[in-house]
Amino acid sequence: MAAVASTTVSEAELTRLACAALEGLGVEREDAARVVRILVLGDLFGHHTHGVLRLESYGDRLAIGGINPAPVIREEELAPALVRIDADNALGPLVGTQALEAAMMRARTFGIALALVRGANHFGAISPYSYIAAQEGFATIIGTNASVTIAPTGGRQARLGNNPIAFGVPNPGGDPIILDMAVSVAARGKIREALKRGKTIPDTWAVGPDGKPTTDPQSALDGFLQPIGGYKGYGLSAIVDLFAGVLSGASYLTRVVPWMEEPEKPQGLGHFFVAIDTRVLGGAEWLGARVRDFAAILHQTPAADPAQPVLLPGEKELRNLAHHRAHGVAIETSVLDRLRAFAAGGK
Amino acid sequence: MAAVASTTVSEAELTRLACAALEGLGVEREDAARVVRILVLGDLFGHHTHGVLRLESYGDRLAIGGINPAPVIREEELAPALVRIDADNALGPLVGTQALEAAMMRARTFGIALALVRGANHFGAISPYSYIAAQEGFATIIGTNASVTIAPTGGRQARLGNNPIAFGVPNPGGDPIILDMAVSVAARGKIREALKRGKTIPDTWAVGPDGKPTTDPQSALDGFLQPIGGYKGYGLSAIVDLFAGVLSGASYLTRVVPWMEEPEKPQGLGHFFVAIDTRVLGGAEWLGARVRDFAAILHQTPAADPAQPVLLPGEKELRNLAHHRAHGVAIETSVLDRLRAFAAGGK
Repeated sequence: MAAVASTTVSEAELTRLACAALEGLGVEREDAARVVRILVLGDLFGHHTHGVLRLESYGDRLAIGGINPAPVIREEELAPALVRIDADNALGPLVGTQALEAAMMRARTFGIALALVRGANHFGAISPYSYIAAQEGFATIIGTNASVTIAPTGGRQARLGNNPIAFGVPNPGGDPIILDMAVSVAARGKIREALKRGKTIPDTWAVGPDGKPTTDPQSALDGFLQPIGGYKGYGLSAIVDLFAGVLSGASYLTRVVPWMEEPEKPQGLGHFFVAIDTRVLGGAEWLGARVRDFAAILHQTPAADPAQPVLLPGEKELRNLAHHRAHGVAIETSVLDRLRAFAAGGK
Repeated sequence: MAAVASTTVSEAELTRLACAALEGLGVEREDAARVVRILVLGDLFGHHTHGVLRLESYGDRLAIGGINPAPVIREEELAPALVRIDADNALGPLVGTQALEAAMMRARTFGIALALVRGANHFGAISPYSYIAAQEGFATIIGTNASVTIAPTGGRQARLGNNPIAFGVPNPGGDPIILDMAVSVAARGKIREALKRGKTIPDTWAVGPDGKPTTDPQSALDGFLQPIGGYKGYGLSAIVDLFAGVLSGASYLTRVVPWMEEPEKPQGLGHFFVAIDTRVLGGAEWLGARVRDFAAILHQTPAADPAQPVLLPGEKELRNLAHHRAHGVAIETSVLDRLRAFAAGGK
């Protein structure tokens, strides 16, 4: 097992360095700040596979024209509470934050709103978007499609992405409750990480190209991921793609361009963002009291192992956030080196 | 294994008989027709545990004041595209259809709309609502909470319902794509059915009161259901309850009254209905062509077993619907007898 060297940096340092990296790659300062806000939140939540590590692939693709560093993002208001956004092959978190804001702005007026995005790229973890929205009083349902890694139930070829979906609910006076889940038993990023670290994986995560369960991360990456709950996970993946890909006018299923195999091409991804203004439902005290009671009922469940009390969805990530904000966050040193190289105009 | 006698009836006959049963229980003709539309669709889809069989428990509860036969359902428009509905302890499918219509009507104007329901009861399967909406051009996200049957991850006491969530997408010119899933590996209704038929159940469906996997349906009903994907299924259940129960002002988690143990009390359930008008996204031809292409990519996946081609979510149910509409549907004879007894003013 290879040891991975890491360096602990503060949120501010990581943000500064990541912004400088994107600016070194030709991205405007304000756009860079928006992208970095999402990726740094990924690291602070502890999802390093969806943190600033992603700037390595984003940077590689910016350098070869696979991602547009200076997009003209166009918003079309199709109905008062429904906007469709053409990303112009922008960095994912750039158009992602704009779409979230477009949905929140309209939800403030109409109670609920939807932003659909096409022509997009990988936009980081979803939990940062749900977190930002929840802090402003919005419940969210957000999803994205992805390059194919999952076979439909009964099929033996990958035809769907792991297509994550996330839900967030504000908790005035406390931490919001956030579920950010891919439909696979395990994320592909975790398998890539196992490969990088020379580890095996559980045989429930994926099957190899022969359709049989595997513990070898390379065989798993050559094969396809297993969805949760069999046909239910397959169904969720299909539905997220219908909302994020088909309804938005983006690519879908096998028509999404895989960024690892064809990094120089636009991916054509799609996303959807539903925002609900919870402030019209009742005051912050009303909602805060209800969510606190909800949380208490779950927290007070007798635990199977008394040393492992029951947690809420997203609770571990929000504890990580508080801890990392106070004490800094450990980032792989090689990733920080790569960011410095980007910032210096190298690759 | 006990044989269960059944009788094949047409959709029209079943509808007539079920309406007469509700009228015999004191429900107005128009309200009865709305309830029956949802339950009969459940049977036609092949979900008999969520079909007219439910009129047995609805009827028992109407007779003892557990459900209000003549509710005053109140709608509050909290924002132009967001309505909150107080069900006044109505029959579930009565307020369910009204909420769906309230969401669709507003989505027609604003592109998307949300109806939240409180003070409700069991509202049948969700796929009928998604189907009705899809036939009128609306994509939907619909969920409900339920009496507790699931333990949070790491807990050893049931504190959440199986809380189903459904998604539907219209397919102009073809069958819509619908995913209606409970968050448990198997539905509680299936376990009740196994008990009724004297069958055992797979040991992955539930654990007994001791927290250990069981194949005995009675022990499973005394214990709790297992969620799909571990913490992901737990998280989905919690999120559906936050949207359906907490945001709507309904009861949630252990505060939902279990209808089997306390049939004479209002359940206090909550639902949410999100409707999206897909017609503003593009014409029927545009959407139809995209959904057909999406379906073809999945259908053409090489099958693990050539005799079992890959299906879309909900495809089996929609085939059942076509078959049952053409050839009638087999309903348990004892259920039909019960409906006739209700219709005659008996119990």
